[in-house]
Amino acid sequence: MAQHIVSSFDEELRQLDQLLREMDELSGSMIRRATQALLEADVELAQKVVTDDREVDAKQRDLDDRAVTLIARRQPMAQDLRLVVGTIRMAADIERIGDLAKNIAKRVGAVGQTPISPELSASIQSMSDLVLKQVDAVIEHYVARRPEDLVELRDNDEKIDIFYTSIFRELLTYMMEDPRKITACTHLLFCAKNLERVGDHVTNIAENAYYILTGQQLPVGRPKQDELSRMESTKGS
Amino acid sequence: MAQHIVSSFDEELRQLDQLLREMDELSGSMIRRATQALLEADVELAQKVVTDDREVDAKQRDLDDRAVTLIARRQPMAQDLRLVVGTIRMAADIERIGDLAKNIAKRVGAVGQTPISPELSASIQSMSDLVLKQVDAVIEHYVARRPEDLVELRDNDEKIDIFYTSIFRELLTYMMEDPRKITACTHLLFCAKNLERVGDHVTNIAENAYYILTGQQLPVGRPKQDELSRMESTKGS
Repeated sequence: MAQHIVSSFDEELRQLDQLLREMDELSGSMIRRATQALLEADVELAQKVVTDDREVDAKQRDLDDRAVTLIARRQPMAQDLRLVVGTIRMAADIERIGDLAKNIAKRVGAVGQTPISPELSASIQSMSDLVLKQVDAVIEHYVARRPEDLVELRDNDEKIDIFYTSIFRELLTYMMEDPRKITACTHLLFCAKNLERVGDHVTNIAENAYYILTGQQLPVGRPKQDELSRMESTKGS
Repeated sequence: MAQHIVSSFDEELRQLDQLLREMDELSGSMIRRATQALLEADVELAQKVVTDDREVDAKQRDLDDRAVTLIARRQPMAQDLRLVVGTIRMAADIERIGDLAKNIAKRVGAVGQTPISPELSASIQSMSDLVLKQVDAVIEHYVARRPEDLVELRDNDEKIDIFYTSIFRELLTYMMEDPRKITACTHLLFCAKNLERVGDHVTNIAENAYYILTGQQLPVGRPKQDELSRMESTKGS
């Protein structure tokens, strides 16, 4: 039986990083294209995004298999174990980001040709751009082993939540003004919600990455105010 | 230094099963109470559900720690490794179910006293009951090592999806009839979507459990038709 060449532990970790990076790049690209497909009613582009999700899933399975085999074979202790398990968790979050992009893409047909106002379109585009920036940055900082740069990602997530609340309100207004737009607007609402959830996954990844690199919890920024409490507090206005 | 008593591998696996079961029971109870809080506008009950989510999270961390330590220490091979890794994955899905119940609970305040029609209330209750039945059953079948019973869970998920599509349409109708209800209805829409997503997590758990127990993929039932394709196909009606 042919013997596999036993690579070094560091080399195997580097391969996990590489897979993580590939998953992240593909998921980010899916968000970018899903948003474009949504705003341009491009059903063909949307279909491509749906198909790409399988590749993210396959890469996750590959990463999981390698990581688990690594744990079983090398019995890493303390920091190394934390790193490998943390990588599995980060990959699970990236896989969910791919799912969310796919879900946006699947709604492109349902939104159809319903005209989207330039203001709403600009809001969704800006929200998507910010989300994408976060998705790109989190793995970049992790792979470069820069824990200090992960801190600002959590603060940026607050901006994504504010975008979401604003789009939520904008959509409610459109629905009230023109009941014929209600169906399309509810799909857009889910799309905006999906982008907001991508932001939450980036925060999860940042927390995991920070913990892997420092053994500490990511420092708490200002307390996160979510959509509901924010809406509650301004209910009278 | 005091020596810990080394328990048997089987005993450690039994403990993982027990934690999985506790997480599942608590998440199920959170769904039941979140639905009740929503339909009875019971803000206090909702708050209790939000708090309970921390316990689910703590149990998941406990399970993860034990499972990872088990892998590193015992180096299980093939089937045992599949079992331990599968348990970590199932716990992650149960943790998400708790999150979804919490999210429903957090919307109770925003829906507020907006009257919900008896028909809609009955639909949401029935959907929630079916979802809860699935959540209870999946871990029960797994812990009892009954892979054959897992198959019907996936078929039941189709019924949950049909409920969701019907509630989605009902809510659209209410919104069109009375724009003042739009805000409350969008929150109810997210609640129904959350219940539908719980169903998806149960399917994930069933797939994992079946694979752990048999080494095979869960047999494919009839192809899943999702909300969007179902709506597309009846768009003209």
